[in-house]
Amino acid sequence: MSSSSIGVAVIGAGMAGRAHLAGYRAATAIHGAGLPEVRFVAVGDVNGTVATESANRFGYQRAETSWQAIAEAPDIDVVSVVVANTLHREIVEGLLAAGKHVLCEKPLAPSVEDAEAMVAAARDSGRQAATGFTFRRSPAINAVRAQLQSGAIGRTLHLDGHYWCDYGCDPMGPMSWRYKGGPGSGALADIGAHLVDLAEFLCGPIESVSGAVLATYITERHLPVGTVVGHALAEVSEETEPVENEDLVSFTARFVSGATATLSASRTAFGHPNGLGFEIFAEKGAATFDLSRASEFGFVDGSAPLATQGYRQVLVGPEHPYITGGLPMDFPGVGHGQNDLFAFQARAFLGQVAGIEGLPPCPTFEDGLRNLRLLGAVVTSAETGGAAVAVS
Amino acid sequence: MSSSSIGVAVIGAGMAGRAHLAGYRAATAIHGAGLPEVRFVAVGDVNGTVATESANRFGYQRAETSWQAIAEAPDIDVVSVVVANTLHREIVEGLLAAGKHVLCEKPLAPSVEDAEAMVAAARDSGRQAATGFTFRRSPAINAVRAQLQSGAIGRTLHLDGHYWCDYGCDPMGPMSWRYKGGPGSGALADIGAHLVDLAEFLCGPIESVSGAVLATYITERHLPVGTVVGHALAEVSEETEPVENEDLVSFTARFVSGATATLSASRTAFGHPNGLGFEIFAEKGAATFDLSRASEFGFVDGSAPLATQGYRQVLVGPEHPYITGGLPMDFPGVGHGQNDLFAFQARAFLGQVAGIEGLPPCPTFEDGLRNLRLLGAVVTSAETGGAAVAVS
Amino acid sequence: MSSSSIGVAVIGAGMAGRAHLAGYRAATAIHGAGLPEVRFVAVGDVNGTVATESANRFGYQRAETSWQAIAEAPDIDVVSVVVANTLHREIVEGLLAAGKHVLCEKPLAPSVEDAEAMVAAARDSGRQAATGFTFRRSPAINAVRAQLQSGAIGRTLHLDGHYWCDYGCDPMGPMSWRYKGGPGSGALADIGAHLVDLAEFLCGPIESVSGAVLATYITERHLPVGTVVGHALAEVSEETEPVENEDLVSFTARFVSGATATLSASRTAFGHPNGLGFEIFAEKGAATFDLSRASEFGFVDGSAPLATQGYRQVLVGPEHPYITGGLPMDFPGVGHGQNDLFAFQARAFLGQVAGIEGLPPCPTFEDGLRNLRLLGAVVTSAETGGAAVAVS
Amino acid sequence: MSSSSIGVAVIGAGMAGRAHLAGYRAATAIHGAGLPEVRFVAVGDVNGTVATESANRFGYQRAETSWQAIAEAPDIDVVSVVVANTLHREIVEGLLAAGKHVLCEKPLAPSVEDAEAMVAAARDSGRQAATGFTFRRSPAINAVRAQLQSGAIGRTLHLDGHYWCDYGCDPMGPMSWRYKGGPGSGALADIGAHLVDLAEFLCGPIESVSGAVLATYITERHLPVGTVVGHALAEVSEETEPVENEDLVSFTARFVSGATATLSASRTAFGHPNGLGFEIFAEKGAATFDLSRASEFGFVDGSAPLATQGYRQVLVGPEHPYITGGLPMDFPGVGHGQNDLFAFQARAFLGQVAGIEGLPPCPTFEDGLRNLRLLGAVVTSAETGGAAVAVS
Repeated sequence: MSSSSIGVAVIGAGMAGRAHLAGYRAATAIHGAGLPEVRFVAVGDVNGTVATESANRFGYQRAETSWQAIAEAPDIDVVSVVVANTLHREIVEGLLAAGKHVLCEKPLAPSVEDAEAMVAAARDSGRQAATGFTFRRSPAINAVRAQLQSGAIGRTLHLDGHYWCDYGCDPMGPMSWRYKGGPGSGALADIGAHLVDLAEFLCGPIESVSGAVLATYITERHLPVGTVVGHALAEVSEETEPVENEDLVSFTARFVSGATATLSASRTAFGHPNGLGFEIFAEKGAATFDLSRASEFGFVDGSAPLATQGYRQVLVGPEHPYITGGLPMDFPGVGHGQNDLFAFQARAFLGQVAGIEGLPPCPTFEDGLRNLRLLGAVVTSAETGGAAVAVS
Repeated sequence: MSSSSIGVAVIGAGMAGRAHLAGYRAATAIHGAGLPEVRFVAVGDVNGTVATESANRFGYQRAETSWQAIAEAPDIDVVSVVVANTLHREIVEGLLAAGKHVLCEKPLAPSVEDAEAMVAAARDSGRQAATGFTFRRSPAINAVRAQLQSGAIGRTLHLDGHYWCDYGCDPMGPMSWRYKGGPGSGALADIGAHLVDLAEFLCGPIESVSGAVLATYITERHLPVGTVVGHALAEVSEETEPVENEDLVSFTARFVSGATATLSASRTAFGHPNGLGFEIFAEKGAATFDLSRASEFGFVDGSAPLATQGYRQVLVGPEHPYITGGLPMDFPGVGHGQNDLFAFQARAFLGQVAGIEGLPPCPTFEDGLRNLRLLGAVVTSAETGGAAVAVS
Repeated sequence: MSSSSIGVAVIGAGMAGRAHLAGYRAATAIHGAGLPEVRFVAVGDVNGTVATESANRFGYQRAETSWQAIAEAPDIDVVSVVVANTLHREIVEGLLAAGKHVLCEKPLAPSVEDAEAMVAAARDSGRQAATGFTFRRSPAINAVRAQLQSGAIGRTLHLDGHYWCDYGCDPMGPMSWRYKGGPGSGALADIGAHLVDLAEFLCGPIESVSGAVLATYITERHLPVGTVVGHALAEVSEETEPVENEDLVSFTARFVSGATATLSASRTAFGHPNGLGFEIFAEKGAATFDLSRASEFGFVDGSAPLATQGYRQVLVGPEHPYITGGLPMDFPGVGHGQNDLFAFQARAFLGQVAGIEGLPPCPTFEDGLRNLRLLGAVVTSAETGGAAVAVS
Repeated sequence: MSSSSIGVAVIGAGMAGRAHLAGYRAATAIHGAGLPEVRFVAVGDVNGTVATESANRFGYQRAETSWQAIAEAPDIDVVSVVVANTLHREIVEGLLAAGKHVLCEKPLAPSVEDAEAMVAAARDSGRQAATGFTFRRSPAINAVRAQLQSGAIGRTLHLDGHYWCDYGCDPMGPMSWRYKGGPGSGALADIGAHLVDLAEFLCGPIESVSGAVLATYITERHLPVGTVVGHALAEVSEETEPVENEDLVSFTARFVSGATATLSASRTAFGHPNGLGFEIFAEKGAATFDLSRASEFGFVDGSAPLATQGYRQVLVGPEHPYITGGLPMDFPGVGHGQNDLFAFQARAFLGQVAGIEGLPPCPTFEDGLRNLRLLGAVVTSAETGGAAVAVS
C-alpha cells in the first residue's frame, strides 16, 4: 500500500463484481471511516467490453482483461476476486505473491485442498486475506445475533434456515458452469455456503451434520447459443448436457452448543429470486429474517404482557449495527438492500488494510476453509445415505 | 346405528375433546348433510366435573366417567376417542367390540404393535374406524393439494414443513404425560404426527427418512401440585422428574416421487402457540400455508407477467373445498379457524357411518398405522446417528 | 318467553341469515351460557325453497314464507330480522307487537324517521330490541378497545378506517336492491354503517363529519335474468337501469374526545372481498385490525427496548375477550372467522332475553338510530360540498 | 457549467442533506449515465463542524458555512438546497442569479408568493430548477403507476394514502422549527407535501379538496437545551412554547378524472418511523405500497383463476423502472432503500443539466408551486370547517 492512499481493483465484472465495484465506491462515505484516499484503479474481466463498461459506470480508471495485469500493477493495493471459484486459487495466489490484499468471494475454492493452499499462501504473504461472506454485514442479522449473544433470551435451541432461489427453475435456462462439477458444487456451494456460514455466525460451531439429501430435478440442460452473463436467460440450442450437481440440498446439523439446525438450499425454488431466511428459537424468545425484506427482522420475547405479546416487526435503524453512519439517512423505515452490505464489507476490508479500527474485520481464509469443510461434511453425509458426519 | 338416527359420544373432554363435541354439533349444518337425526348423547371423562360441565356446555344428554358405560350404551353409535394415546387400544377395541363406530385421535397408539391390533380389530368389527388427522380438512391445505394434483404447476420438488409449538417452552410448566414415554413420544408423536401425515397427504408416500435428531432441551420438569388440564399452567412443586422424550425433532425425508422434505417439529418454539406451516415447491409454482392464518394460503405460478408476478395471498372462499356449504357465510375474507376443521371431520365421519356421500371419508386406522411406522422410522434414524431408514 | 325454554326464529335466509341461524345453534356451547333450553323453531323466507333448505341444514323445526306466521307463532320468543332494511320497520313493529324479542340487522331502517318509530315501538313493547352490529363481538377489536380504554397508551388521537369490498366491482354484476335508494343507501349504509359504529365503539361519540364525497363509478347496471341471491353472479340482460346510490364514500370525522378519523367505504374495492380494517393511534401506542385475518391484531407500544421495538402480531387467545369459553379449542393460533361473531352475538342476545349475565348486551335500537343519524350527517356533508356537519 | 465536468455542492448537511451528498456520489454509477466528470466540490452548513465532517465523509473537496460562498464559487455548477423552507427563496434566488442549477427540497417555499417568485427567478435564469419530490423515483411506485397508465386495470377509482411518522410522538421531544409557522406548516407541509405530490403523480390533477381537519395533539413543547440536529432526541428544559402548526391532517380529495382520495398525514403516528403508504383501486385491479418495505408492492388483478387469485407481493427487479442499471445487483429480492432514491434523483438532475437523456427529468419549480397551492387549499378547507375548495 502506498503510504497515503489505497488503490482498489475488482477482478470479475459480473453482477457480484458490480456489487464489489459499487461497494468500494460507497465505502468511504461510511461515517468515521477515516480512511486514506481510496483510488479506484482497475476493473478486470476476460470480457473486455464488460470490463470497460464497468470501469466507466463505476468510475474506475482502467479496464484489464488479465488478472496478471492487476497483480503486476504497482498502483493497486486491494483486489476483490469475483470469478468462478475454480479460478480462485491461481488468481489469489498470484495476487498475494504480488503483495496485494485480497478479498475473495465464497466459496473460497472448489476443494478443501485448494483452500488449504490459499490459507497457507495468505499466511506466508502477510497480507490481509478475506472471504466474502457478505451477509455477516446485514444489520438485521447482526441485530438478531446481538440478541442471542446478550443472553437475554437464553440458550439458542433451534435454527431453521434456508436459502431458496429460483435461478435454476426454468428447464430452458442455459447450461452454465453453475451446473458443472461434482456433488456439492451446485446449490450447496453456491448458496448453501452462505447459509452454513450464517448458521455458525449465529449459533457457533457446528459439531456434525446428518441426513443430507442432494437432489437434482432437472438432469439435462440445454447448451446456450453464445455467451451467458450471470443468471440471464439466453437463447439455447436443442443440444443438452447432463447437470452434474445438485438443485437442492436438505440436512440437519447439530451445534457444539447442543442446538439443532434444519437447513435447506435450493436453486429450483419457484417464486424466490433471492430467498435467504431463517427462524431461530431460544429459550425465552425467537427471531426471524427474510432477505426479501432485508431491513427488518422479526422478534418475540416475553417482555410484553400476554394480551399484547406477539412477533414484532422491527425496522432496523440507529439502534442496530451498521445503520448509523453507514447509511446517509438512517432512521428506521428508510431501509436498505443487499448492495449496501457490499459497501459495509468494503469499508471493513479497507479499514483492516489501513489499520483503522471500525467495523468488525472480514471473515478470513480460515473461515472460508472452515466453510468448505462443512460443505464437504454435508456431501459425505449425502454419499453415505444420510449418516451423521462429524466436523472437526 | 338405529335406523333413523345416530347417537354420538365423545370420550375425553379436554381441549381437543371439546373440539370434537362442538364438531358433531356443527356437523349437521354443513350443506347437503342429508344426515339422519343426530343425537348428542354422552360426554365421557374420568373427571366427572369436567364431563358434566362439557355435557352442559355442548348440549349432550349425559356425562359418564367410564368408557365402558359408553361402550355398553345402546343409544350410542359413534364415539370419538380423545384421550392419551396409551389408552387408545383398550378403549377402541372395547368400543369396536361393542359395535360402535370409532373416530380415534392421533397418534393412533403408542406402538406399531398396538396399532396393528387396532387395525385388525377394526377390520373384524366391520365398523367405521377413523384416525383424527384433522388438518386433512383444512380448506387451504386442500386448495394447495388441488393445485399440486392438477398438474398445472408440474412435479412437486420440495416440501419444507414444520409444526412449531410453544407449550413446552416454560421450564416451570408442569411435568405431565406429554413428557413421558421413550424417544419419539414427545414432539414427534404429539405434533410431528400431523406434519408427517400432511407431508404424505400433499406429496404422496415417503420412501425414506434420514438425519433425524431428537433433542431434549429441558431435561427435568417440576411435578405439578394438583391436576393439570390441557396445556394450562399450574402450580408446581420443587420436585422434578426427568423428561423422557424429545422437545424437538428435525429430519429429512424423500418421497417415492423423488421429491424431498425438510421437516421439524418442536414444542419449545417460543412465539408459536400453534405453528403448523409449510412451503412447497413444484416445477412451475409454489405454495405456503401457516395455521395461524388458517383461512388463506400463498400461491405463486407463472400466470402473471413478470412485472406483477409474486406470491399471492389467496383467501379461501367458495372456490375452495369445504367452504361453500361448510360455513354459513362463505365468501372470501369471512375466515374460519381450526375448530371448524373438527366440524368438517365430524360431518365426514357421520356421513360415512350413515352411508351418505359427501365429504371425503376420514383417514383409516391403516392410515394411523402408516403414520406410526413413519414416526418409528424417524426414531430409528435418530438412534442410528441420522442414517437413512426406508419406510415400507 | 315460555318459562323453561326459548324458541328462536330467523326471518331472511340469505347469507347473513344463515350466519344468524348457525349463530343461535352455536350459542349454547359458549361456556357459562347457563341458558334455558333453546328451541330452534322456524326459518322464514319469501322463497319457500330457500326457507326449507335452511331449516333442514341448520336443524330448525319448520319453514315459513311470511313473517306474520312467525309473529303469530306462540312457540317463538326470539326473532332475528335479516332482510332488506326497507322491510325492517313493518316486520319489527309486527314482531314487537306480538311480544317477540327482536334482533334486527343493520342498518336499522332506511330513514331516521322509521328508526325513531322502531325505537318507540321497542320501548313500548318492553321487549329486548337489538341492532346487529356484529363486529362489536370481534375478539381482536375488543382487545384493541381494551388497550385503548385501559389508558395504558394514553389518549386516542387518530383512527384511519375503511370497509372495502369488491362485490360491486364487476360492471356485469346484476342490478339489485343494493343499488337502489337515494344517496347514502349504497356503500355507506351497507358497509359504512359498520365502520361508523366501530369508530364510536373504539373512540367514543363522533362530534362532526366533514368532507364527505359520495362517488358512483358504475352508473348503470344490467338487469338480471331471474332471481339474484346474495352477492352471487347471475345472468344479466342487455337492459340496464341507473344506479341510484354510491359505490364509495370518503370522509373525515372528529370525535368529542378531540381525536380525528379518516374513513372510507367502498363496494368497488378490487381484491377485497371483505376488507374491514383500521389503524388507530394513541399517544403511546398504536393498533391495527384487518378482518381478513380476523383472529389477530397488530399492536405497538413503548414496552420493548428500541432495538427490538416494532408492531406485534398478536394472536387472540385466552387472554382476550370471547375466546375462553367461546371457542372449543381456545389457545392462540387456533383462530376463528366472522361466522363465530354471530354465535357470540346470539349468545349475548339469548342471555339478555333470559336475564342471564354473561356477554355484554347487544347494541340497542337507540344505537341503530344513532348510527343512522351519523350516516345522515355524512350524506348532508356530501350534499353541501363537504361542509362539516355536527352530529347531535 | 464548465464544458467538460460538473461541479456539485449541497447546502444543508442534516440527514436529508447527507442523502443528497451520497446521492450525487452514487449517481455516476447508474448505468448509461454517460455523464461528464462530476466533481464533488462543497458542503455548506451554518454549523461548520457538521459541514466539515460531511465533506470528509462523502468526499467533497471543501466545507462552507455561507451559501453565498457556494453561489460565488466558479467551480460549482449544481447545488442542492436542503435547509428549512423559510430560507429557500433567498438562497435559491441567489444561486440562480449566480448561474447555478438548483435542486431545492420540498416544500418549495413557506408561501405561494415566495414560490411564485422562485418560479419566475428560475424562468429568468434559464437554469435547471427542480423540486425534490424524491418518491417519484421509487421503483415500486413507478411500477404501480405504469400499471395504472397502461390501462390494463381500467380507470382509477380510489386512492387511500397516508404518510404517518412518529417523530412528533414524544411530548418530551424538543421544540424546533418544525413546530413553528401557521396552520399547514406542520405535518401537512413536512410530509403531506409528499403525499399530495404522489397522489397527483399516480392519479393526475386534483380538482378539489374537502373535509380537511388540522389537529394539534401536543400543544406545548419543551425548549431544548443546546442545538437540535434533525429529529434527534435532545435534552429539554422545563420551559415550553406553544406548537403553532398541526400534528395531523386528514382530508378528502377529488381528481379531475373523477377518482376520489382519502388522505392523512401525521407526525404523531406511534410505531411508524417513516410510514408512507397507499392502496389504490382501479376498475379491474388494485395495488399497495408501504415505504417500510420499499422494494416491493402489492398488486392484484383478474389474471389468475379465482381459486388462486389474491394480492401479490411483487419484488421489484429488472422488470421495473430504475432497477436495471440503477443498482449494482439488480435481481428481485436484492432490495433497496430510500437513500437509493436520492441517487436516482441526482442522476436525473445531473443528466438534465448535462443535456443527456436518461431518467425522467425532475419535477420543476412549477410542480413545487402547484404542490403549495394544493396544500393551501387543504388549509383553506380546514379553516372553513371542511368545505370543498377547488384547486385551479
